[in-house]
Amino acid sequence: MGTARVVFDKWRDRYAQRMADVRSSAVRDLFAAATRPDMISFSGGMPEIRRVPNDAVIAAATAALRETGLEALQYGSSEGRPQVRSVVVDLMAEVGVRVKLDDIVITAGAQQALDLVAKIFIDPGDTIICEGPTYLGALQAFSAYQPNVVCVPMDENGMRMDLLAAELERLGPRGAKFIYTIPNFQNPAGVTLTPPRRRELLELARAYDIPVIEDDPYGRLRFEGGHALPLRALDDEVIYLGTFSKIFAPGLRLGWVIAPRPILARFLLAKQAADLCGSAYAQTTAERYFADPRWRKTLQDLTRAYGERRDAMIESLAEHFPAEARWTVPAGGFFVWVEMPSFLDCKSILAEAVERGVTYVPGDAFYPDGRGRNCMRLAFCYVEPEKIHEGIRRLAEVLEDRLELYRAFQAAGVLPGASDPVSERG
Amino acid sequence: MGTARVVFDKWRDRYAQRMADVRSSAVRDLFAAATRPDMISFSGGMPEIRRVPNDAVIAAATAALRETGLEALQYGSSEGRPQVRSVVVDLMAEVGVRVKLDDIVITAGAQQALDLVAKIFIDPGDTIICEGPTYLGALQAFSAYQPNVVCVPMDENGMRMDLLAAELERLGPRGAKFIYTIPNFQNPAGVTLTPPRRRELLELARAYDIPVIEDDPYGRLRFEGGHALPLRALDDEVIYLGTFSKIFAPGLRLGWVIAPRPILARFLLAKQAADLCGSAYAQTTAERYFADPRWRKTLQDLTRAYGERRDAMIESLAEHFPAEARWTVPAGGFFVWVEMPSFLDCKSILAEAVERGVTYVPGDAFYPDGRGRNCMRLAFCYVEPEKIHEGIRRLAEVLEDRLELYRAFQAAGVLPGASDPVSERG
Repeated sequence: MGTARVVFDKWRDRYAQRMADVRSSAVRDLFAAATRPDMISFSGGMPEIRRVPNDAVIAAATAALRETGLEALQYGSSEGRPQVRSVVVDLMAEVGVRVKLDDIVITAGAQQALDLVAKIFIDPGDTIICEGPTYLGALQAFSAYQPNVVCVPMDENGMRMDLLAAELERLGPRGAKFIYTIPNFQNPAGVTLTPPRRRELLELARAYDIPVIEDDPYGRLRFEGGHALPLRALDDEVIYLGTFSKIFAPGLRLGWVIAPRPILARFLLAKQAADLCGSAYAQTTAERYFADPRWRKTLQDLTRAYGERRDAMIESLAEHFPAEARWTVPAGGFFVWVEMPSFLDCKSILAEAVERGVTYVPGDAFYPDGRGRNCMRLAFCYVEPEKIHEGIRRLAEVLEDRLELYRAFQAAGVLPGASDPVSERG
Repeated sequence: MGTARVVFDKWRDRYAQRMADVRSSAVRDLFAAATRPDMISFSGGMPEIRRVPNDAVIAAATAALRETGLEALQYGSSEGRPQVRSVVVDLMAEVGVRVKLDDIVITAGAQQALDLVAKIFIDPGDTIICEGPTYLGALQAFSAYQPNVVCVPMDENGMRMDLLAAELERLGPRGAKFIYTIPNFQNPAGVTLTPPRRRELLELARAYDIPVIEDDPYGRLRFEGGHALPLRALDDEVIYLGTFSKIFAPGLRLGWVIAPRPILARFLLAKQAADLCGSAYAQTTAERYFADPRWRKTLQDLTRAYGERRDAMIESLAEHFPAEARWTVPAGGFFVWVEMPSFLDCKSILAEAVERGVTYVPGDAFYPDGRGRNCMRLAFCYVEPEKIHEGIRRLAEVLEDRLELYRAFQAAGVLPGASDPVSERG
């Protein structure tokens, strides 16, 4: 049902201008397209939900309805139930963030928090700062409010602070509405912001008086190495976005935002306008689910599985991928980011990959401006290790074929990508 | 957590301009305030959820998780599950609207549909047409997109077509982005648009080439009289908003939008940006709930209860309310609209009413411009009949006291409201 299928739209001159910038999600369109039975999908960042014991969820849902049925089925408070916010207080304390119930608003996944933060901060033309590449859902949410998006590149230690400093210097104090970052196992790049850079980021944000939005869906899915304190633990003016999607289940659509109270008051008004209140039904289930300590073992199981899949993918990449490819090695989360030579257009070869039974998300989906076409995001989270090997083998074939073609052009004296509009640096 | 409690906001000059127009919901603030144990609340439009059999919901939730647990807990499609859209197809057919699965997108209650329709249509300064008074949640949702809101008055037969025609004439073809109407048992006015006026409304909309948004949360809660065909049954370009909140439970946050497909494609992009997808968990439960035919009996029970409460309220109003008061007699839904003499400020007497143990929503909450302060919305849906009598008696005392005061002023030769800024015509 994407816009691509719309042949004639008699309303085309009626829509608000803001919709001109909202793109369909390449990931979601692919979910729909990739229906071949033996398809191996590296495209979707879906949790391995079959490891969440169904009986634990049934027990939680049943207890919730039996004990709080009238509340579960009724309209709730816009902030979210105190009981589920209390679960968030405990979860945050475990990662070093001390908050009270009134510092938290429950949202429909972290995605709603992204939409509402953008809604309360961004006027058309305002500058915002993100990592480049960044989460495509954030770009979707932000773009509806017509910002100027500045992307700061990353290296293996996360967002580059020298480049952020240069951007802030260029923009001046309060020159951006906010800095949006995913410090842990970044989506899509897979890299983690080091503790020294976390402190540096906060110092820069304070110096230039710019709010920081910390999006942390994957922080608890760490395979190795030490836990890094969230930015919010180091500075209580950071706006922190969390989600139950990766530690419990995305189907409940439950996330949260932690923010300074004046910002939270605005956020709450925006939330009331957006959906009145969150689902008390989902919230009561989540409360019961986290009241049963089995959730910790389930999260360990999940993390172990993701770690094995990360290993399988990194091994396969080393074994099968062409020498020209470079990739990140994430210490947690769902994603590996692959960079190919600048002349290789990962978007144009996607159709061929799908034909060979493997999908991924081309890198330009994670930039606001067409960059990243020589890159791809590979999600290892939802594929069994043996299928990961097979999928990477298939994908390597596609890449090798294309590189072979370019090598032939080069041998014939034709510069690769010379007439190719995507050959500019990613 | 309303803005009223915010003492100092260091971010106050950072917010987007659109937030300046978003008001807190008077209803929601009252929910929080009215905590006295014997408080009788005519303020909230909450369904009588205790009549929804808890065991039916537990059975639905359990079956949903047992049979479709992996889907219930995973990310879902942005359109919503085909199974729950199929429930909507059947529900709509029963009220004379023939639609296919692809004509429907599932939303987080009808409120999200209001937000997203506004998001895709309204540029700042665009004119939109509503009934006056209209649903305050719609005003909240729309106001974030900075429209110019034109309110067309109603009489006992719904929106006045002569006044709508005059507004359209003034605005010219395509002079408004849309016409928003609640044809059945309007919130807050309680009146229903008659069949001849429905046809007239559609003719006017076609003549001036303006989309119509039909919001129909209460259509199936009819106490007497014949069912009127929805606007969408008469014109398949109407954008129809429905909800499970009043025929099942608001706690699931499930509604739907039916629209021409090009509009629905835009709507879907806006929905992806807003929350990626709806809750598959809630959707699977709803599918099972409506697969069990007991839902019809439950809806009959609910409707009968609301009818009895409507009767109790109308009787009590006739018995207790001052002769100066006028009110509507709804044939369904949740609300009675009371109009007092123009000099009586129903907002300023609310505190006194709360002190006497009764709440309502002052009429100005339902206008974008401060009109309606001599009016009040009384929700009879959530109060037992005997308590309705007591609540109306309490409220009548407050009104009588205030009228007494005005009569004394009048007797002393002082014009009532002469120095009162709210005395202009509502």
